[in-house]
Amino acid sequence: MAALLEGLFRARSVALVGATDRSIWSSAAHANFARLGFTGRIHVVNRKGGTVHGLTAATSCAAIGEPVDAALVMVPEAAIPEAFADLRAAGIRHAVMLTSGFAEVGAEGAARQEALLAEARAQGVTLLGPNCLGFINYADRVPIWTTQPPLPVLRGGSIGVVSQSGATAGFIAAFAHRQGMGLSYQISTGNEADVNVARVVDFLVDDPATRVIGLFLETVHEAGTLAGAARRALAAGKPIVAIKIGASETAARAAAAHTGSLVGDDRVFEAACRQLGMIRVPSIEALVFTAGLLAQRGPVRRRGVGLVSISGGVCEMAADRAEEAGVAVPTLAAQTVSALRAVMPAFGTPNNPLDVTGGAMLDPALFERSLAPLGRDPSLGLLACFMDLPDTAEEMASYRGEIIRAIGAGFRAAGLPALMLSVLPRPVTEAGRALLAETGIAYLGSGVPEGLAAIGRALDWSARQERGLAEVGMPEPDAARPEGERATLAWLAGRGVSVVPQHLAADAEAAAGAARAMGGPVVLKIASPDIAHKSDVGGVALGLEGDAVAEAAGRILASARAARPEARIEGVVVAPMRRGGVELFVGVLRDPLWGPAIAVGLGGVWVELLRDTSLRLLPVTPEDVLEMFAELRGAPLLEGYRGSAGIDRQAAAEAIARIGDAALALGPGLAALKVNPLLAGPDGAEALDALAVWEQ
Amino acid sequence: MAALLEGLFRARSVALVGATDRSIWSSAAHANFARLGFTGRIHVVNRKGGTVHGLTAATSCAAIGEPVDAALVMVPEAAIPEAFADLRAAGIRHAVMLTSGFAEVGAEGAARQEALLAEARAQGVTLLGPNCLGFINYADRVPIWTTQPPLPVLRGGSIGVVSQSGATAGFIAAFAHRQGMGLSYQISTGNEADVNVARVVDFLVDDPATRVIGLFLETVHEAGTLAGAARRALAAGKPIVAIKIGASETAARAAAAHTGSLVGDDRVFEAACRQLGMIRVPSIEALVFTAGLLAQRGPVRRRGVGLVSISGGVCEMAADRAEEAGVAVPTLAAQTVSALRAVMPAFGTPNNPLDVTGGAMLDPALFERSLAPLGRDPSLGLLACFMDLPDTAEEMASYRGEIIRAIGAGFRAAGLPALMLSVLPRPVTEAGRALLAETGIAYLGSGVPEGLAAIGRALDWSARQERGLAEVGMPEPDAARPEGERATLAWLAGRGVSVVPQHLAADAEAAAGAARAMGGPVVLKIASPDIAHKSDVGGVALGLEGDAVAEAAGRILASARAARPEARIEGVVVAPMRRGGVELFVGVLRDPLWGPAIAVGLGGVWVELLRDTSLRLLPVTPEDVLEMFAELRGAPLLEGYRGSAGIDRQAAAEAIARIGDAALALGPGLAALKVNPLLAGPDGAEALDALAVWEQ
Repeated sequence: MAALLEGLFRARSVALVGATDRSIWSSAAHANFARLGFTGRIHVVNRKGGTVHGLTAATSCAAIGEPVDAALVMVPEAAIPEAFADLRAAGIRHAVMLTSGFAEVGAEGAARQEALLAEARAQGVTLLGPNCLGFINYADRVPIWTTQPPLPVLRGGSIGVVSQSGATAGFIAAFAHRQGMGLSYQISTGNEADVNVARVVDFLVDDPATRVIGLFLETVHEAGTLAGAARRALAAGKPIVAIKIGASETAARAAAAHTGSLVGDDRVFEAACRQLGMIRVPSIEALVFTAGLLAQRGPVRRRGVGLVSISGGVCEMAADRAEEAGVAVPTLAAQTVSALRAVMPAFGTPNNPLDVTGGAMLDPALFERSLAPLGRDPSLGLLACFMDLPDTAEEMASYRGEIIRAIGAGFRAAGLPALMLSVLPRPVTEAGRALLAETGIAYLGSGVPEGLAAIGRALDWSARQERGLAEVGMPEPDAARPEGERATLAWLAGRGVSVVPQHLAADAEAAAGAARAMGGPVVLKIASPDIAHKSDVGGVALGLEGDAVAEAAGRILASARAARPEARIEGVVVAPMRRGGVELFVGVLRDPLWGPAIAVGLGGVWVELLRDTSLRLLPVTPEDVLEMFAELRGAPLLEGYRGSAGIDRQAAAEAIARIGDAALALGPGLAALKVNPLLAGPDGAEALDALAVWEQ
Repeated sequence: MAALLEGLFRARSVALVGATDRSIWSSAAHANFARLGFTGRIHVVNRKGGTVHGLTAATSCAAIGEPVDAALVMVPEAAIPEAFADLRAAGIRHAVMLTSGFAEVGAEGAARQEALLAEARAQGVTLLGPNCLGFINYADRVPIWTTQPPLPVLRGGSIGVVSQSGATAGFIAAFAHRQGMGLSYQISTGNEADVNVARVVDFLVDDPATRVIGLFLETVHEAGTLAGAARRALAAGKPIVAIKIGASETAARAAAAHTGSLVGDDRVFEAACRQLGMIRVPSIEALVFTAGLLAQRGPVRRRGVGLVSISGGVCEMAADRAEEAGVAVPTLAAQTVSALRAVMPAFGTPNNPLDVTGGAMLDPALFERSLAPLGRDPSLGLLACFMDLPDTAEEMASYRGEIIRAIGAGFRAAGLPALMLSVLPRPVTEAGRALLAETGIAYLGSGVPEGLAAIGRALDWSARQERGLAEVGMPEPDAARPEGERATLAWLAGRGVSVVPQHLAADAEAAAGAARAMGGPVVLKIASPDIAHKSDVGGVALGLEGDAVAEAAGRILASARAARPEARIEGVVVAPMRRGGVELFVGVLRDPLWGPAIAVGLGGVWVELLRDTSLRLLPVTPEDVLEMFAELRGAPLLEGYRGSAGIDRQAAAEAIARIGDAALALGPGLAALKVNPLLAGPDGAEALDALAVWEQ
């Protein structure tokens, strides 16, 4: 696939099929070759021939008479079969399809798209789209793109943008450009009949020009491919920053109307991001600033951030937003404080955040003198200095330019990763870009909240990247198909999960005998494959001992038979009554896009009322489960609370990882597996109840 | 006070005291008179006389020889006494003090500030500052401001900005200007020795030019004045949008270093905002966009918002961010859908959010045709259309300008409050401002997330404003001073709060008798003014009946005496054992800035582990308490959960309002009052335990 995409993205000769001066798309596509500095061959194809975009049009691709690497197909939907026949005749193996009218218009369109894909496959054509705007490869100056890109082109860009929405790819590119950041690629995948975001990401992981990958997703086709590419990207130190819409019902509805996409379960995508080290962001602003920070600075290896500004008010706002973004702003070491005191004005306070004071307006070198000692503070890993980059050459020549140069010198003297951020959102002008190039300053025109949010994400990603991803093997398939609660528990026991002992007693007397053999109080439950809600039929009794066991068993049997005369009653299940501990909820579900995932939470009110669960794709390691525990709001309960003992979290995590493996082993026929509760205590974790649910 | 401030803010003659060409502040202040178009008299004062800023300097204010309304004092701190003597001699009653070196530099400076205030009071001088940058009254063109304001001045601005940080006032003004929004005032209050934010807000509530008040606060001096002004502002339909730093420890530390401010308890400020209808925002961006929206649009009377864009991707992102911001995006009524279908291209989908489709690039009138029917949808109260305002006159003349004009026509045809928002953050150029003036479009260059957050805040404020604030009377003072738990409970009973019956039994036999008289199981607690943690000394027993009562009472007395031989033991308190219901926590505390406040939460793990409480200033009405209930994460438990009955929320709210009144009546000597638990059930709420804590 990578080779096929390379052939597309590095095409040296391109045919514009359906080219016409009357189309703004065709005209833009043609103009873009010159705008981007494309040095290959350009052909225009129009059935009627004539002159189009100032070039003599071939009447077909086959009539071009020389090999062509890629075709931009702009003909109406009805003319697609003919166009494809022409591609075959001309031997063109890569097509970008602007044409719409496929999956985004409903079932008929989806069928047309299926046929289109079949045709492409049959011809060995790699297809981008349909219903896409194309791509620009900035590094190699290959634009097959049907609207105007932001100009002038910024060279040396290293953010590779891939978007299922073409207009959004354009918005991202325009905003990055306005912020002074160049792209390596901008790729619109449209309906993704063939090429999809996952495959493009896999390609970009190996692209030398791309340092950060930015995504706009409505849905995920080939989640497995994306997961694999994400793992490779993390290992390669190449961050993936993704917008994924569909957190709201309303957006899901809008996506269906836009491209017919199923947005999928948002919490599963969130879990996938967490697990694969992808950075999920809520907006284009967040994407561009986070990607821009990482493209400029790479991973940051120590978490503490030193905040610096010329304004006390900005220091305070930055501190509040830092806390919100999970950015640690440590107090300075004693030696840093003395070093700062030696260089700051008497009315200044050596502190983090550091207000260098308005004195820096008269004495810009104060920035350099103050930043240098911060670089030696043992708790800092990044310096973030808030200062607006001037807009004009005139401002650069004033004290404002001097301040920027002093900050650049201070960053160099500090010797730490460092970043300048604007106080408020503002574009970067051409003069500003020149000053950044001169001073070597990494800069975000983000303002305080977006800037600190980007720093927080970059720190989180850096830590994730350093930790790496464990290689987790898939369990061997298991042909078992446990049905019902007892069978599920028994089968889990066979997979190494501790489960509560159970005895099926046919009648009251046998139940009493089983209880005696177990010793201590027991729980009784009606045993019937036909009764799901046992309490509703009086089928449960708790904490029974001695004579009460037989009596309760008799009552349960009678009550269930009376309530559900048609149900098959197998008897009564006797199990020891457990007390104390913490009830955990473990649920495995199958996501239609991502496959099996596991949810873990505290039982009862925590999961039912607060929806306090943590989710991961399967398989998970015990270490993953420990991370999941830490995400729960109720986590302190696991550590012990109000004198109650905490649980053995390691043992519980191992049990849960085993439950996950067990569910995976059952294969795609398993719709869901619930263990509720898994009773965890200081001595381990034991499944008290479990149920496998199978696809119909 | 308002009259005094009016004299300051509308000064017709100003003396710059300590004026010198060498100072950038003095030079800026002088230049600002011409920049703003000040038409009054300007005097420069320098002890040495000579020519300053091209004017002949008087050697003192007294030497000016004509009445002067206001002085800008820029002399060093050491020369302040002399300057004040001069003000007195010249009869100048308003002073703006740039001079720093007061409360912000520690205890000695604070003492100097006290002396300064005393001097000002003695002379009847109204003082802004010290350590402030001054003010600009844009409406009347009176600038006493010591740095350069954003230029050119935008006339007709209606946002009044008040900031304790001078630099931040400048940042707010500059950002508002860049976004095309003018201010009515920008006022830096500095150390607030005399004039403070609260009093300025009170003034601006009555200022006809000011439609929205924007605040930057480190702390709140005169919380009562601010609360009163906020109530008047809400009644007048004038929103207050406030940044208040100090949510983080780090910011609190930074504020202490900046102006010596105590930031106060952030949750209390948050509660005050909620209660008084002030809009709290996290950043300057949020302040400017929220204030700008409300200044342009005023209150919005129906909550549903129609989202419109030319891009499906933007529609989806907007829908997700709308949900996050609490903005309802209702599905369209059937008649709206048919009306849209009649005017939209066949490949479009009538939906909310509405993707008008890229067809609008070729046919801009599609915007007008699509917006008009949305205006008649019964569930919509506001239209929000995402489209970037062009930057240049050239772009205005292209299809991009046509689109904006079509949107303006659509807004007019719709007849609903409507707003255009940029897709991504971007400044508003002069050409852009002209096009907005021509089309009458209200616009925010905010991008999607900030724009929707601003809409959410405007909708919340509009609803609050419509609901109004109940007038709550203060309770009559009560000379009581209940000490200990029994006395506190008894006193609450006297204030109309249901409390559990209690009987103090001197010995085991009396306890048994009391239990018999009560009937049913009882609770026993050791009664001692010296034992705070009863359980620790074995001083509590639950659920006792019959002979067990005397036995347990004897055991409790013996155990407590053995554990704490020095403690005064009064006997054993006997109370009926309550079961079921929901345990509520009610706590009254005294905030050093805002005074008494009340916290309400669910008891046990909810308050202790999840800190799930809601807070309000006292007094509260039962309606306030019902709102507090609704804010709790555990709120569903109050409505009944898993078959347990819910509570009578009205009765519980009345009990809590009474507890609040009771606490207020006790006056400022009361440090805290805790009722824990207040047991609420379907039949009412009863205090089971309570304790008043008194200031030492």
